[in-house]
Amino acid sequence: MCRFLAYRGDPIYLEDLVCRPKHSLVRQSLRAEEAKVVTNGDGFGVGWYGERETPGIYREVTPAWSDENLLALAAHVRSHLFFAHVRAATGGGISLANCHPFASGSWLFMHNGQVGGFGCLRRELEGELPDTLWHQRRGATDSELLFLMAVHRIVQGFGVVEAVGDVLADVSDRMRQAGVDAPLRFAAALADGEDVYAFRWASDAKPPTLYHRREAFGQMVASEPLEGEPEGWEPLEQGEALCLHADGRTSSHQLSVCTGPLA
Amino acid sequence: MCRFLAYRGDPIYLEDLVCRPKHSLVRQSLRAEEAKVVTNGDGFGVGWYGERETPGIYREVTPAWSDENLLALAAHVRSHLFFAHVRAATGGGISLANCHPFASGSWLFMHNGQVGGFGCLRRELEGELPDTLWHQRRGATDSELLFLMAVHRIVQGFGVVEAVGDVLADVSDRMRQAGVDAPLRFAAALADGEDVYAFRWASDAKPPTLYHRREAFGQMVASEPLEGEPEGWEPLEQGEALCLHADGRTSSHQLSVCTGPLA
Amino acid sequence: MCRFLAYRGDPIYLEDLVCRPKHSLVRQSLRAEEAKVVTNGDGFGVGWYGERETPGIYREVTPAWSDENLLALAAHVRSHLFFAHVRAATGGGISLANCHPFASGSWLFMHNGQVGGFGCLRRELEGELPDTLWHQRRGATDSELLFLMAVHRIVQGFGVVEAVGDVLADVSDRMRQAGVDAPLRFAAALADGEDVYAFRWASDAKPPTLYHRREAFGQMVASEPLEGEPEGWEPLEQGEALCLHADGRTSSHQLSVCTGPLA
Amino acid sequence: MCRFLAYRGDPIYLEDLVCRPKHSLVRQSLRAEEAKVVTNGDGFGVGWYGERETPGIYREVTPAWSDENLLALAAHVRSHLFFAHVRAATGGGISLANCHPFASGSWLFMHNGQVGGFGCLRRELEGELPDTLWHQRRGATDSELLFLMAVHRIVQGFGVVEAVGDVLADVSDRMRQAGVDAPLRFAAALADGEDVYAFRWASDAKPPTLYHRREAFGQMVASEPLEGEPEGWEPLEQGEALCLHADGRTSSHQLSVCTGPLA
Repeated sequence: MCRFLAYRGDPIYLEDLVCRPKHSLVRQSLRAEEAKVVTNGDGFGVGWYGERETPGIYREVTPAWSDENLLALAAHVRSHLFFAHVRAATGGGISLANCHPFASGSWLFMHNGQVGGFGCLRRELEGELPDTLWHQRRGATDSELLFLMAVHRIVQGFGVVEAVGDVLADVSDRMRQAGVDAPLRFAAALADGEDVYAFRWASDAKPPTLYHRREAFGQMVASEPLEGEPEGWEPLEQGEALCLHADGRTSSHQLSVCTGPLA
Repeated sequence: MCRFLAYRGDPIYLEDLVCRPKHSLVRQSLRAEEAKVVTNGDGFGVGWYGERETPGIYREVTPAWSDENLLALAAHVRSHLFFAHVRAATGGGISLANCHPFASGSWLFMHNGQVGGFGCLRRELEGELPDTLWHQRRGATDSELLFLMAVHRIVQGFGVVEAVGDVLADVSDRMRQAGVDAPLRFAAALADGEDVYAFRWASDAKPPTLYHRREAFGQMVASEPLEGEPEGWEPLEQGEALCLHADGRTSSHQLSVCTGPLA
Repeated sequence: MCRFLAYRGDPIYLEDLVCRPKHSLVRQSLRAEEAKVVTNGDGFGVGWYGERETPGIYREVTPAWSDENLLALAAHVRSHLFFAHVRAATGGGISLANCHPFASGSWLFMHNGQVGGFGCLRRELEGELPDTLWHQRRGATDSELLFLMAVHRIVQGFGVVEAVGDVLADVSDRMRQAGVDAPLRFAAALADGEDVYAFRWASDAKPPTLYHRREAFGQMVASEPLEGEPEGWEPLEQGEALCLHADGRTSSHQLSVCTGPLA
Repeated sequence: MCRFLAYRGDPIYLEDLVCRPKHSLVRQSLRAEEAKVVTNGDGFGVGWYGERETPGIYREVTPAWSDENLLALAAHVRSHLFFAHVRAATGGGISLANCHPFASGSWLFMHNGQVGGFGCLRRELEGELPDTLWHQRRGATDSELLFLMAVHRIVQGFGVVEAVGDVLADVSDRMRQAGVDAPLRFAAALADGEDVYAFRWASDAKPPTLYHRREAFGQMVASEPLEGEPEGWEPLEQGEALCLHADGRTSSHQLSVCTGPLA
């Protein structure tokens, strides 16, 4: 499983969260505490918003812990909203196009989890995308596909939380119809340059971990407490969608994943 | 031969010079006009100053023309002083540590040219470095070594132009003593976060090309005119050291390369 | 446009053709003579048959001219049938999955050319593949898709030349239906471990170059004469399919590309 | 700490040891049992002898577990004598030139361990190399330097075991003179295309693990039992040099590390 963090608040250097904390994401890439797969060495990525509408992105297939460019970038780029992700591949192969975060227009997304039986469902799910979004797909991961499916709903007018709930319901239905027993697990973050949405959900009782923390200068969500100690880090509930608003407020929503009746 | 550009002026996005012009450095990486070696595909790098004293650096061993991270970075990083370089290896091998620009403390350096017979002189020249600078050496190029030799003189109290002149004289002397016939050629840029120094010199009559241009928003030096047309681009003279000052002024100096008598 | 070579004959070291000739493929990666795009620096690959039924493959996204592993491999691997390819990307992005040669079971394929308007046709053409072959697709190139479409026909019982002709006809028809004016160009090689099939065809009058040469120890086809001189190198005709048989014979066939009536 | 294996016997495919065993080196790259540093994801390499005097080498800076080229190569290259190594960097940076195994002429070498205080000693130790070997040095590791120091002694006429003992004594002396407290640890393998020499030694009581196993088809040494079970795997003694001879015999020698009196 992957590890990630998202930040929203006063502009800070990426390194303040990505590289410096005792249990920073770069260190988690080498040794995660709460993950089943200990090493997250199958690539990494950072995405950040600056003065432009679209986010900047830096991704590499090499392990985060040894990337000098990441250290330099994180020491020189400041942002009010950024994502960072280290990958332990569960499917889709090791390639740059499979590294998180993914961008589409002004949207940015990253994911920790897995669509059970994705190999069998992939072609069918890709078939659902409209041409515009189908052509934006660059890699082969379930994560990127979930993202584009959500963007599809958002451009159709769905609210963000509603869109994500509908994607999870749709995929769950198809998994069931295909007779997949393996669960759908989903810890994710989605942003549009203003707000950050964080999600924690699973079709079984084991959603990937996800924590929220509020500091004087801003708020963050992360797969694991960055200081290695749980104090001040509040776990999201199973089924919770937490929005970190641009004005510093937080609002919690319930993900509605309405799966259909078994045909 | 490599291609490079340096900018000093109002903060602009790196892409405004690195990616967008008709004859931008990214395009020069694929097809340079005035270079002997047409393709500069052996790595590239950008270095920029932001709010910190030390520069940010992003370097890769892959060709600049196909690097998505470079495009994203150049579209989202703004700076008042930045360097960009595409490499056609003449020696030292293809590795990240051999990509320009090089940094040492707050200094940034890049080079186009070659030390004739460097293979024979390398060990002797490295031997001259004090321990501190010797341990900063990461690669195997003549360029990085010339840089560290100049930094050595600068920390000893030499002025920048004087330091570079003394390095070129020292290396020329050693080349002559070693019986090297091949020339020493040197087009380079050096910066400390405030001023940019550009140099054009060769031990023979063929110094690498280097041009200067002044715009309303800032000034730049480049191996080749970025618009493919020479208009508005002034070539530096053989032996010229041109300083682009922080306040927008330019001052031209004569490089003094005093080689000793043949022993 | 890309450059490639294929060899069939007595086992020789890959380097004898890939690295050593005056105009070897490694040198063509830096400077091709007959290609529109001079530099082929967007990755490369070699594929070879040994004692196993499936071929060995080594591919990289870096330029061939600077890859030490390629030099070492080519100096230590001997084969009776091998392919080598250097890429100048025309579409599909720079990634390992887009590097030639491509393998499927015991089949090996590489291509120089382009499907005009591929962006518009890609989704429709991928849709034609049966699930098994759809899941074998790893990249985004027209080349890999043409290959899988040919394999599809071969496993259905088509002869190799017939299969390739049918794929070219099918794609041409769809291009015409989609109103694509740009041509379909196709120089390619296909092998099964025994025989090598070489193809040269275009929907207009400009098929990519392809040459055949016979030596005492074996035969080869290549995009350009490896010695830089045309002597002894016979160009394939437009529409020719040349088979280099395991027993040293050569047979020439006519590609039959029967496009349908315009609807 | 790194993990490695060396094989001498009937020609077998590299994959038979490198990829297939339950606890193969590729799996050890992700999760080693007996090492302090669990992940060995900082590059890897294989070296093998074929029909030529010099070995073939394939090295990459990416983790072994995700390298498709390694899998393909290991499935198609057979050898009577090969090395494989996965790296957890302890110093020298992540670069291809720092990946094991290292070659010099017909010699091949790999190492697990560390020279305590190497940063302080590196310049002095490099200074000892004759020019020819100094110019062969490509990276910055203690391992490559120990290798070249051994080759230096071998070309001067030392026996292999004697040469390695003398290098360890020399380095130990210099460590002591420099006041280094950290130990010198050394598990290594050295080959010339005929015999494999394996070494296990440390200046303290904790030499890195190293095991020997004899099969009907050949013998091997490895940092950890490849099947995850110690049965049939004999640990080398502290100070032991084990030679796997070309004729299938094994001879055990005592490493003589004669450090001088403290000045």
